[in-house]
Amino acid sequence: MMKFFFAPATCALASRVALEEAAAPYEAVRIDFKTGEQRKPEYLAVNPKGRVPALVTERGVLTETPAILIYVAQTFPGAQLAPLADPFALARCQAFNSYLCSTVHVAHAHRMRGARWVDADDAAAIKAMQKKVPQSVGECFALIERDMLAGPWVLGERYSVCDPYLFTLSQWLEGDGVDRARFPKLAEHTRRIKERPAVQRALAGEV
Amino acid sequence: MMKFFFAPATCALASRVALEEAAAPYEAVRIDFKTGEQRKPEYLAVNPKGRVPALVTERGVLTETPAILIYVAQTFPGAQLAPLADPFALARCQAFNSYLCSTVHVAHAHRMRGARWVDADDAAAIKAMQKKVPQSVGECFALIERDMLAGPWVLGERYSVCDPYLFTLSQWLEGDGVDRARFPKLAEHTRRIKERPAVQRALAGEV
Repeated sequence: MMKFFFAPATCALASRVALEEAAAPYEAVRIDFKTGEQRKPEYLAVNPKGRVPALVTERGVLTETPAILIYVAQTFPGAQLAPLADPFALARCQAFNSYLCSTVHVAHAHRMRGARWVDADDAAAIKAMQKKVPQSVGECFALIERDMLAGPWVLGERYSVCDPYLFTLSQWLEGDGVDRARFPKLAEHTRRIKERPAVQRALAGEV
Repeated sequence: MMKFFFAPATCALASRVALEEAAAPYEAVRIDFKTGEQRKPEYLAVNPKGRVPALVTERGVLTETPAILIYVAQTFPGAQLAPLADPFALARCQAFNSYLCSTVHVAHAHRMRGARWVDADDAAAIKAMQKKVPQSVGECFALIERDMLAGPWVLGERYSVCDPYLFTLSQWLEGDGVDRARFPKLAEHTRRIKERPAVQRALAGEV
């Protein structure tokens, strides 16, 4: 059975929803960020990057949310989680997920993980990064609302792995100081995705 | 014919190499970053993010390097640029490209594009970011050298879209203040990929 390493309130939620949507057999293993478990040798042997998520399959370990999402979609095609046979549609799916990981998640991470990009003891620089987060994250979601969220789902009529990924990152908006009221399409997306049993199971697994 | 929007010395090179490897018919359109062409209405109509690359296909515009790479691989399967039929191998390919876009490229971008994450007039914070780049980018490439570059190509014996993407980002090492001598496997990868006619054509197209 696959092992899925996660921590609550991280981007790992997106992959867990996909696993639940696919009814994939997996065991969830919680990594405790408060005690720095992600930096301990036991976990670094699983994922040398010291991050979550990580999915241990019978052929080896997979990391990076967009990769795990496409893996689940392709391994469990019956769940119809990505437009696998249509190169253009699949590329749009991958483009959305790439934007989330390389731009949206990164903008957010400057609030809590600034020490990745400046010296950890440079309090002024850390604070300067935190100050910009409401603007940078807000601009990302404004672009998503205007140009990327076709509705009702990200790619249009068909639900895909893009949807739990967007839902996951959008849960951080309040903490990032961004007013959700600016994004009515996102609000409808959130309402709708929370009705899905797979999402409810994945959220219950975080508690 | 597809239109490929690029700027020299950006990550767009990776997608251009893939197009050349696939012998895809495309017209290259240069965007002049020096005059801020990427922020002008004409280009924002193509890519609202104001970045390169962007690939205009007959069905619409594709952005984000990992998405364009998989699109080229899937649209021109004869070029064998990705292990499309093997979900685990394809996920490893996507995981590598996700790491490059979300971690390696982002670490690098703190040298030239710090104003994405702090106020543009906060000179001290911009400088604090630049100071960390040799360390953060160096750590990324140390991990690639140790754990990700199977050799001779990224995924092992078979060349894939991961290779031009790694080559592209590795070209920034000197500018980022990272000593290439630390990475002998990468040096061999660079030597080998530069022998490929597609890479030579893509580089010639940047001049």
